[in-house]
Amino acid sequence: MTGAPSSLSGHGGRLAAARARFPDAPAPWLDLSTGINPRPYPIPPPALEEWGRLPDPTDLARLETLAAGAFGVDDPDRVVAVAGSEAAIRLLPWFLPHDRVALAPPTYASHAAAWRAAGTEIVGHPGPDDLRVLVNPNNPDGAALPAKHVLALLVSPLVVDEAFVECEPALSVAAQAGAPGYERLIVLRSFGKFYGLAGLRLGFVICCPSVARLLREALGDWPLSVPALAAGLAAYPDKAWADATRTRLAGDAARLDALLAGAGFEIIDGTSLFRLTRATDAPARFEALAHAGILTRPFDHDPSLLRFGLPGTDADWARLTAALETPR
Amino acid sequence: MTGAPSSLSGHGGRLAAARARFPDAPAPWLDLSTGINPRPYPIPPPALEEWGRLPDPTDLARLETLAAGAFGVDDPDRVVAVAGSEAAIRLLPWFLPHDRVALAPPTYASHAAAWRAAGTEIVGHPGPDDLRVLVNPNNPDGAALPAKHVLALLVSPLVVDEAFVECEPALSVAAQAGAPGYERLIVLRSFGKFYGLAGLRLGFVICCPSVARLLREALGDWPLSVPALAAGLAAYPDKAWADATRTRLAGDAARLDALLAGAGFEIIDGTSLFRLTRATDAPARFEALAHAGILTRPFDHDPSLLRFGLPGTDADWARLTAALETPR
Repeated sequence: MTGAPSSLSGHGGRLAAARARFPDAPAPWLDLSTGINPRPYPIPPPALEEWGRLPDPTDLARLETLAAGAFGVDDPDRVVAVAGSEAAIRLLPWFLPHDRVALAPPTYASHAAAWRAAGTEIVGHPGPDDLRVLVNPNNPDGAALPAKHVLALLVSPLVVDEAFVECEPALSVAAQAGAPGYERLIVLRSFGKFYGLAGLRLGFVICCPSVARLLREALGDWPLSVPALAAGLAAYPDKAWADATRTRLAGDAARLDALLAGAGFEIIDGTSLFRLTRATDAPARFEALAHAGILTRPFDHDPSLLRFGLPGTDADWARLTAALETPR
Repeated sequence: MTGAPSSLSGHGGRLAAARARFPDAPAPWLDLSTGINPRPYPIPPPALEEWGRLPDPTDLARLETLAAGAFGVDDPDRVVAVAGSEAAIRLLPWFLPHDRVALAPPTYASHAAAWRAAGTEIVGHPGPDDLRVLVNPNNPDGAALPAKHVLALLVSPLVVDEAFVECEPALSVAAQAGAPGYERLIVLRSFGKFYGLAGLRLGFVICCPSVARLLREALGDWPLSVPALAAGLAAYPDKAWADATRTRLAGDAARLDALLAGAGFEIIDGTSLFRLTRATDAPARFEALAHAGILTRPFDHDPSLLRFGLPGTDADWARLTAALETPR
């Protein structure tokens, strides 16, 4: 079997599909198919009795204020918490209807899927009234546009998905999003990737107050779970952890590059949370790693690409190293 | 101070607002302002390392199958998991646009708020193309319509919010919702109230396959958090717990009725998860209970009403009993 079955290439994190396709792989799987920090923010053990209560709206407002501070946004009214940035991606076509949306592939597939589901035409270059969607840094290749170049794109309405920007915060245009003069700029932020808690579903839309009001009305009073609220409230004020994590992730990404280059992969690009590589035998390498219980991320549009997330523990690094050394 | 400040009457569960208004009340507050089972389904302690992963789509499909079984729905394709039934209530106006929606107040306030936000006119009685929204059993008064009477309303398109129906499952029309011949019937179900885990945000929309497809596209791949998925997967197959809980809640509701009647409240109606009462001095009783750190649910539209959720522990019952005995 060669090539990337669509069940494993649409998104990362398809462990059940991987288990079904490689039933003899050793468990537990090492999932390197996503760009999620494998060493999560150390949240305190949950108080299960809090899970019975509806989240208090004042906690939601407090979280949005803390997140605004972390993003450099001066007015928390422009920051709307959502249950993961995927939820925001899927909702936007309903709140910002456009006839045409410009996307430059390859990029995160949910954007095109969301707009297509709403009947929107996808184009390569936007006219003045067409919406442009930019993922910065880009997923899957990590291509990054400096903030001033992003702002120069504002001749058209612009959505910037900054899901991986915590690795390189200088790229962010969140501070401008929705501010006076920047009403046509919307920024999406993700909590789970950098903070390593993607299973809690937490993200933010940063936008002008009128879009924010519409979104809040459409989300209702309890858009977040109690565990997601608690994690965000603990993590966003912790600048020391964020700074240390940025440094550590950059070091781990360099270590992964060296390991992959030594194993014959060409490093194309990436962020500190994932590395995109090329190898002529990438489909066979994907298979070999999968037989060793290591899931990486193939791409239907270019089978010579393979993407690797970061291993977390020493044992995970050793396991990847050993699997890459297995004679082909 | 008398009457119900809007900050405490809009929804239940406004503990932060209660703390601010009654700063001298003994902590922790006993929150009887919602209709949430105070003795939650005993979920195993969470595996925090699972929170780092994106929820696996196969788990979502498995949960929808289990929930379909619990609701008596023969085809899981008609069951769409959402992050709480409030999320569904807020989304429906975007997916089922109508010029007019019929609502019979008093009922759960989010319905009118959601439709008004979408610019829909709220009317008392539906024309043949108007959508009717029914909460059964009703919140806040518990008024219940037998299933065959609900189905007789299908001369117009119909949304039935069955958030409290687990207390009296014979009322449910979930099995019919969206089935051939019942395409105009949509049912909303809530997990958190009966299972006592409202903070996890889990609910379901049961509808015809074409609306289900639209909803799934708009929600994306990860509508639920890992803790919500885990709780639903554990709880829905456990029919023994559900049966025992139904019996226990009915007993606790009868015990609460006796306690409240003895304290001078007239029992109006309710479900096993909340009791609606009337007292001419209800605003003063609300205040007295709040000063004792017990939050109940007042109503702006009728200040003589007061709603009580169930106490959970023996200590909570004793605390409510003592507070009700305090001379007025």
